[in-house]
Amino acid sequence: MPDYLDTIKPVVRALKPYSLAVNDAPIKLNQNENPFGLPPRIKEESIRRFMDMDWGRYPDFVPTALMDKLSAHAAWTPEGIIVGNGSNEILNAVFAVTVAKGEKVLLSEPTFAIYRQTATVFDAEVVSVPLTADFEHDTPALRRAIEQYQPVVTVICSPNNPTGNVITERDLKSLLEVARGLVVLDEAYWEFAGHTFVSLMNEHPNLIVTRTFSKALALAALRVGYLMSAPALATEIRKAVLPYNINRFSQIVAETALEHYDAELAPLVARILTERCRVFDLLSGIEGIAPHPTHANFTLTRTTRLSPRRLYDELFARDILVRDVSGNPMLKSYIRIGVGTPEETDALVEALKSIHHF
Amino acid sequence: MPDYLDTIKPVVRALKPYSLAVNDAPIKLNQNENPFGLPPRIKEESIRRFMDMDWGRYPDFVPTALMDKLSAHAAWTPEGIIVGNGSNEILNAVFAVTVAKGEKVLLSEPTFAIYRQTATVFDAEVVSVPLTADFEHDTPALRRAIEQYQPVVTVICSPNNPTGNVITERDLKSLLEVARGLVVLDEAYWEFAGHTFVSLMNEHPNLIVTRTFSKALALAALRVGYLMSAPALATEIRKAVLPYNINRFSQIVAETALEHYDAELAPLVARILTERCRVFDLLSGIEGIAPHPTHANFTLTRTTRLSPRRLYDELFARDILVRDVSGNPMLKSYIRIGVGTPEETDALVEALKSIHHF
Repeated sequence: MPDYLDTIKPVVRALKPYSLAVNDAPIKLNQNENPFGLPPRIKEESIRRFMDMDWGRYPDFVPTALMDKLSAHAAWTPEGIIVGNGSNEILNAVFAVTVAKGEKVLLSEPTFAIYRQTATVFDAEVVSVPLTADFEHDTPALRRAIEQYQPVVTVICSPNNPTGNVITERDLKSLLEVARGLVVLDEAYWEFAGHTFVSLMNEHPNLIVTRTFSKALALAALRVGYLMSAPALATEIRKAVLPYNINRFSQIVAETALEHYDAELAPLVARILTERCRVFDLLSGIEGIAPHPTHANFTLTRTTRLSPRRLYDELFARDILVRDVSGNPMLKSYIRIGVGTPEETDALVEALKSIHHF
Repeated sequence: MPDYLDTIKPVVRALKPYSLAVNDAPIKLNQNENPFGLPPRIKEESIRRFMDMDWGRYPDFVPTALMDKLSAHAAWTPEGIIVGNGSNEILNAVFAVTVAKGEKVLLSEPTFAIYRQTATVFDAEVVSVPLTADFEHDTPALRRAIEQYQPVVTVICSPNNPTGNVITERDLKSLLEVARGLVVLDEAYWEFAGHTFVSLMNEHPNLIVTRTFSKALALAALRVGYLMSAPALATEIRKAVLPYNINRFSQIVAETALEHYDAELAPLVARILTERCRVFDLLSGIEGIAPHPTHANFTLTRTTRLSPRRLYDELFARDILVRDVSGNPMLKSYIRIGVGTPEETDALVEALKSIHHF
């Protein structure tokens, strides 16, 4: 090992890079994106607004216009909103301001892999409570872990990626009551569950809610996420957020998307929910395939006749990309399939049937 | 103090947020942007390429096309390039993978304020070596500090913001030879100095070079920066860089800008250098105003008849925004003035003369 690498922290050296099979296919059901794409009206209006600007100038130091629109959209005070280059960036900032070496971060796993990756870079000791056998957050076990380990941060993803389960209000409250650290609720998929816990932050100032524009809001290409918390907490977290973290074009597109949410985006969410039911029914009818009930825009799916890896390959050979999540010991026989357009669902079902020799 | 704030690290609680007077004026000489703006041809071609894409899809996991173009532009291997949401994001990642609580980060100050802010969030102990009285990097003192404190990271900005001085190759080498930690050379303004130290990374794998698209490349609105280092070091730093950190639109504009660099952007850099000479001569002729020689696209300027604050206010009243840097004890009588267009220079000189009652 060359000695200039000795400066790298041991936890980092030991870390495997977060990676993703870099495959592309005509039917992409592997990243839980909005399959209908961003409505043309929002694209065109964003371009029109941006074209006249001087691209050589820095964005606003504080993206006030976007924060105000988010405040109206999410029913939370703008002083308690931080906009990020994706919600992960803001979660990163939460770890940066809270985690000293060796302190505990509590996760309910399997969940989104980035939480563990990021917490580890910050030298946190990750404590993991497994989901129950039917993939629910194990609230009693989480409560015990909070009491025993006193984590500075607990992260709950609801609906949870990749399992699609949600935490109930009563369960979340019971964690907030016992937690002396912060509880981050990742609501990346909240639109598909139809409920939010933003208002709980009023009684529980140790609750933080993060959200993204990459799923329901059809803006994954432009990387916009946001965090909501008590304003005093947001003031501290902002100290770890770099200035100008959100480029001006993404700001404009996000603002435009919020302005047209009711007319253009909410109907797409409704179509995704309709399609989610249809996918579930159709998958249930295929021998060797068992979809798990979901509150998100993806379906954790058990494959009993083929290995997940084999099924992934067979689907990929048929132009369909899904996510193989079987690397997780609790998900050895599972893949995750995003909800696509009706045509994509038809192609998926057709492909699965041909693979299973129906 | 509500107890949910007890989870915030003491160093963060004590930190003053990085801030900037949120003023706007017709003549903006306060952020060292390219005053000529991004050439229309690059804007139009970027929009054309992006318009056809699906904005609801994530960007490439690895921005290969942009890395390849950067590799050709900067003459460094793509394996040793990391693209960031501004160069600060990547510097942040360098600290994340190296700094454990209490370890030292060495700065040559006054310099860009973000280095200290970021290092502090990562619980580093910041060791500071002052510039010499004529605002040069004090290489002998920096060498002694490296030997005494063994910093995990030393940051040198060259040309330095806000003083405009550069480090020589011999001086930089002498730091690299003695440093057992990493040395980050911030080349944000290198195009205006006309030389780069990228090739030194071949002999000195503890050297890291960062750059930005926000200055010469006229892309501040879109937040693109990059880091270059030995590939093995880049592999480690990437572990602290979030996936999809660079949105797809910024990728496309950055690629397009590099394709048209020689034809469209290099001529703008030449014009800025011409204008820099002109500004220097004109400012030198104004009583009470003393510009410091500069290798960047800004001029540190001493004001002897009015306080920096007063001069800032008077200029602002005349539609001109400059940067008051007098908060720094070494810069008590200084402002920083970015190089503008010839018309902006004329307006600046006119305003300064009227303020000084010529």
